[in-house]
This record gives sequence, C-alpha cells and structure tokens, in this order.
Amino acid sequence: MPDARTLRLFALDVDGVLTDNGLYLGSVGDQRVELKRFDIQDGLGLALLRGTGIELALVSARPSEATTLRAAELRLSHVLQVTDDRKIPALQGLLDELGIDWAEVAFLGDDLADIPVLKKVGLPMAVENAIPEVKALARYVTRAPGGHGAVREAVEHLLRERGEYAAAVSRYLADREAMP
Amino acid sequence: MPDARTLRLFALDVDGVLTDNGLYLGSVGDQRVELKRFDIQDGLGLALLRGTGIELALVSARPSEATTLRAAELRLSHVLQVTDDRKIPALQGLLDELGIDWAEVAFLGDDLADIPVLKKVGLPMAVENAIPEVKALARYVTRAPGGHGAVREAVEHLLRERGEYAAAVSRYLADREAMP
Amino acid sequence: MPDARTLRLFALDVDGVLTDNGLYLGSVGDQRVELKRFDIQDGLGLALLRGTGIELALVSARPSEATTLRAAELRLSHVLQVTDDRKIPALQGLLDELGIDWAEVAFLGDDLADIPVLKKVGLPMAVENAIPEVKALARYVTRAPGGHGAVREAVEHLLRERGEYAAAVSRYLADREAMP
Amino acid sequence: MPDARTLRLFALDVDGVLTDNGLYLGSVGDQRVELKRFDIQDGLGLALLRGTGIELALVSARPSEATTLRAAELRLSHVLQVTDDRKIPALQGLLDELGIDWAEVAFLGDDLADIPVLKKVGLPMAVENAIPEVKALARYVTRAPGGHGAVREAVEHLLRERGEYAAAVSRYLADREAMP
Repeated sequence: MPDARTLRLFALDVDGVLTDNGLYLGSVGDQRVELKRFDIQDGLGLALLRGTGIELALVSARPSEATTLRAAELRLSHVLQVTDDRKIPALQGLLDELGIDWAEVAFLGDDLADIPVLKKVGLPMAVENAIPEVKALARYVTRAPGGHGAVREAVEHLLRERGEYAAAVSRYLADREAMP
Repeated sequence: MPDARTLRLFALDVDGVLTDNGLYLGSVGDQRVELKRFDIQDGLGLALLRGTGIELALVSARPSEATTLRAAELRLSHVLQVTDDRKIPALQGLLDELGIDWAEVAFLGDDLADIPVLKKVGLPMAVENAIPEVKALARYVTRAPGGHGAVREAVEHLLRERGEYAAAVSRYLADREAMP
Repeated sequence: MPDARTLRLFALDVDGVLTDNGLYLGSVGDQRVELKRFDIQDGLGLALLRGTGIELALVSARPSEATTLRAAELRLSHVLQVTDDRKIPALQGLLDELGIDWAEVAFLGDDLADIPVLKKVGLPMAVENAIPEVKALARYVTRAPGGHGAVREAVEHLLRERGEYAAAVSRYLADREAMP
Repeated sequence: MPDARTLRLFALDVDGVLTDNGLYLGSVGDQRVELKRFDIQDGLGLALLRGTGIELALVSARPSEATTLRAAELRLSHVLQVTDDRKIPALQGLLDELGIDWAEVAFLGDDLADIPVLKKVGLPMAVENAIPEVKALARYVTRAPGGHGAVREAVEHLLRERGEYAAAVSRYLADREAMP
C-alpha cells in the first residue's frame, strides 16, 4: 500500500486548502480587485517539505493572480490552474513530465472538484473543512481548517510518517542559529 | 403546501448570506476601495443547483461592485440591486418576466429588509446569523453562517428535498473524471 | 438616574466597536492601502435608532479614511476624529453645539481612550471585547464583539429600554412591504 | 535569573504575533497588492510600554511594506526585516548599537524562525498560536492568539511583573481626562 515513505509529489488544491475559501472581491476606481488570504505558517511547512526533495504542486480549478503570487513567493515551480474544472489531465501531464506515478502522489483537497484526483493518488488527504464526500476518501484529515494551518499540519504529518520531521527541523535551525 | 419539489427560483440576499456581513472599506491614494468576502464552496453549490434548471437570483438592498463581480463569476443572470431598500417590487418584476409565482420561490435572508420577501415566498429560509425575526419566518435555518457555507448548505438541502442531490453530484463528477 | 429614555445622543468609538479592531495595511504599487471591516447589520441598527430622533456620533482617536467613508454611507453627520487622542474636548464641542448634556449621552467603547468619556456620560456601554477597565464602568456590556453585531445589539437594547423597538421595526417594515 | 524588571528591549516577530499569520495577496489591474491585518488594541499596548522607557523592536524574516507602515504608525524606530531568514545577526547588531545585553531582552514569537532568538534572550515569550517547539521554550505563553490581542496581553504581563501597570494606565488617562 502506498504511503508517505514512497511519496515523490505533494499536490494541493488552493481555495479551501491554502485559504479558508474566502474570496475578497471589489474595486478601486474602475479596476477589479481580488484578494485571497494565505497563511504564513503554511509557507514554512512547504519549505521544510521541499528540503527533503519531494516535489510540490498547486492544482486549482479557478485561475487567480493571488494564487500565482503566492506560488511565486513560495518558489513553487509547478502551478496548475485549469479553466475547465478538470484537474486530472493537468496533473497527468505533470506526472508524465516528472516521471512520477499516481501512487507516489499525496493530494490535499476540500471539495467535489478534488474527488477525481483523490481517487487516483496513493495518499489522499482532506482538510477539516472538506465536504463529507472528500473526507470519506481521505487517509488523513487535518484537525486545522484550510488557510489556518491545515497545510502545515499535513506537511508535518507526512514528515513524521517518513521519520524525517526532527531532521528537517534541525537542518532548518542549524542554518539559522549559526552566526555568519 | 409549496416545497422544494415545486421550486423554480432560488433567490438570495447578499450581505450576511453570501458574505459574513463584512464590508471592507478604505482607500488607495484618493480612490475609494470596497471589498466583500465571498465563499468558494458556496459558488460550487450554486453551480450544482443551476444544473437542475432552477433559476438563481441575487436580491440586495445595497448596490455594490463587489456583488456585481461575484454574480458575473457565478454566471448569475438575475442580479437585483435596489437603491430604495425595497426588494418586493424588484422581485415582482423578475417573477413577471420569468412567469414564476411567489409560491415557487425559495429565498434565503438574514435581516429586516428580507422580511417582506420571506412573507411572500413559498419557501422562506434563513442563515444561522439571521436576526430572530427572520429565523421565526423560515422553514429552514442553516447551521452554517453566511459567508461560511450557508448557501452551500441551503442548496444541498433543497437538492436533497427534491431527491436530486446524488444525481447532481454524480453528473458533476462524471464530467470531471473522464479523460479528455 | 439617567437612562435610555432620556437619551438624546448615541456616540460610538470606531476601532473595536464598529470594527473588530482589525487594521488592514499594505500597498498597491507605491500607494498606501488601509482598510477596516465594518458590519452591515450594525448599519441597519443605526438607521433604526436615527429614525427615533436620537443623534448619532462617531468619536475616534485615530483619523482614518475608512471611518469617513463608513460614516458617509450611514449618513452620520457627526464624525469626530481627533489626532491628539483626547475625546473629551471634541465631544464637549459637539454637545455645546447641539445643546445636549453629558447625562443625555450613551457611549459605546472598548479601550483606555474611551474611559474619560465613559466616566462622564449618562449611559456608559462596552462591547464584549472591551478591556476589563472599560467593562467595569459600563451599565450595559454587549454579548456580541465589536464589528460582529455589538452596535446592532446596543441599539436594540436602547430601543427596548425606551419601549420603542417594536414600533421602530414596524415602521421599517411597513415602508418596505407596501407595493409602490 | 533575568526577568521583566531588568527588561530594556521588547522585541517581537511580526507574522503570527502582530498578525494572525494571514497574508492577503492579489492584484489591482496589473499591480500586486499585499495586506496584513494588525490589531488596534495591540498598538495602544505598545504605546503604554514605550512610556516606561523600554525599547521596542520588530524582527521579521519576511520584509513587507505592511510591516513598515504599521511600524511607522506605532513610531517604532527599530524595525529589522531580514531577507536571509536569520534573525540573530540582525538583533545582535541592534543590541550592540543600543548597548543592551541578550539577558535584558524579551522576545515574543510563534514559529521555527524565532527559536534561535528565543534561546538567547532573557525572557522568551510565545503567542497562543505558536508551534509546540516555541511554546516549550517560552517563560510566558499568551492566552490570546497573534493579531487578536496577544501583544497587548504580553505588554500588560510585562508591566504587571514590573509593578508598573497601574501607573502606566493612570499616566495615560490623566493626560486624556484633563480639559485642554
């Protein structure tokens, strides 16, 4: 059975997972404004996971400049934003490119659009605010809701399952405790 | 007695229903900024309901560009934003245009301005954060507050009452699980 | 003893009372952005109170365009934004202008800057999130926190104490239930 | 053992301490927008502490215009925003400049990047939302979460430990109760 130890790619939905499903809309003069709220502690978690060599990807069915900006800050090179609400073909393309199998993928989702993906990956995961249908498919459900630490918690869970959490933290701290 | 099975129009208040009553105000330079926070899971719910042929309408007593932008993204064609705080004449006009009777309407509201409408529709509904006077009129009160899943929950309730929820989900998933 | 029945002015602090103390700061390009989050249900409450002839005033020790914009939308004509953190002289000026006595004023506050005012008014009130020193001075403490219904609740309390709540609601509804 | 009475500098992390870890990202036209949510009651707390002669510093590993703007409003002259995620050298530089020893510093943090600092200061403190590793190092953990009063609570704790809280409040009020 696939598990965290054979993980090669951690892919995440954006709305409801890296955010709390909030979409801030409005205008400045005649220009449209759209904001999303991300979580700083989630960002450090993704940095810890990337340090172990696992690939990271965002997979959203709703293209948004906010997502692009957050991905750039987190230096995520794989950002799939599909316009037809179909995540499977987009992710299949990335897996082909990276030579990774569905069984080696963990995916963290919250809503109906994530179900096709969760059925295919080796390690399906859900956030606390996921709909019941999504939680029913997940092998791990976070205690924290999306946008409020769910991603950090999921990353820590994966690192602990791999027996790599303490080493990842030590590596992070050693680098920052040393004087220049 | 009218019920979800004879429903032809689902109409919603905006502030406090599609949002949590928050109004983000301020300025950029000398330009006014106004934002509202919408919920992504609510959007998917409205898409599921529209797939069954039921009409959707927003009815707000406070015109706002944020409302217009969200309605456009959700492809809602009926967006009534009145400036005189009177929702009845606006909705009457839409019903006349569509040939729909008040008894065939469900309305989800939260505050005093919704009471005249809730007294006329076949299926009055209230969000968790509605004032007591509104809840007293409602045949269904959501557990989730406005802006945090109340609309999604109301939609799911209507679809289940109609016996159409499982089919709506299956239709949504079948379309997205197939490879292109 | 002064009470709600002799009330002629309801004055409110802004941050922590009409908002949840949040201050959204940042930039667009090189322009400063500042937003505050107000509550739509609070606005309807203030409209109900004004309908009974009671004057309304905002009294803030932190001038902000967000406050000015919200006051304009609520058609509040008395908006005191002092820069020296001293609310007493500003409010004294307004009372002189209107010919109102401190005993005829209700004030709703949350923090130290409100204490001098709360000690002078006839009807001191505090929000749920007020510091203990402010709550200790208040004759009414709201159950709802600032920015999430505290002002609406305070208004309803005042109207009920005056025996005017039902009439205010009826007047509001009668106006909106009639067809044009 | 160092304690609040020998305190000469109160230094704080920004994200998760002065904010709730939220990062609001998006765009207006083609311009990037980034907002953070600060707390007004925290600001008054920092003003009270500065009135006792204690130095204040922000120490962030993520440079942000929002942080710069909030620091300016609070008239904080020491704002360290490092780009290499290493807080120790930056803070060492400030201590050298001010002639302050690590033992005379209190630091309030929430995440891994704060651990090297918390191990060196005389009075390590953590917010309610801190990760367990940070809380384990802290001599005081706030009940309030970051961005929702944690800083105000930490300041009040420090002032009480020093026996200066009542005097600080009295000084603040005396100045504002006097008529001009």
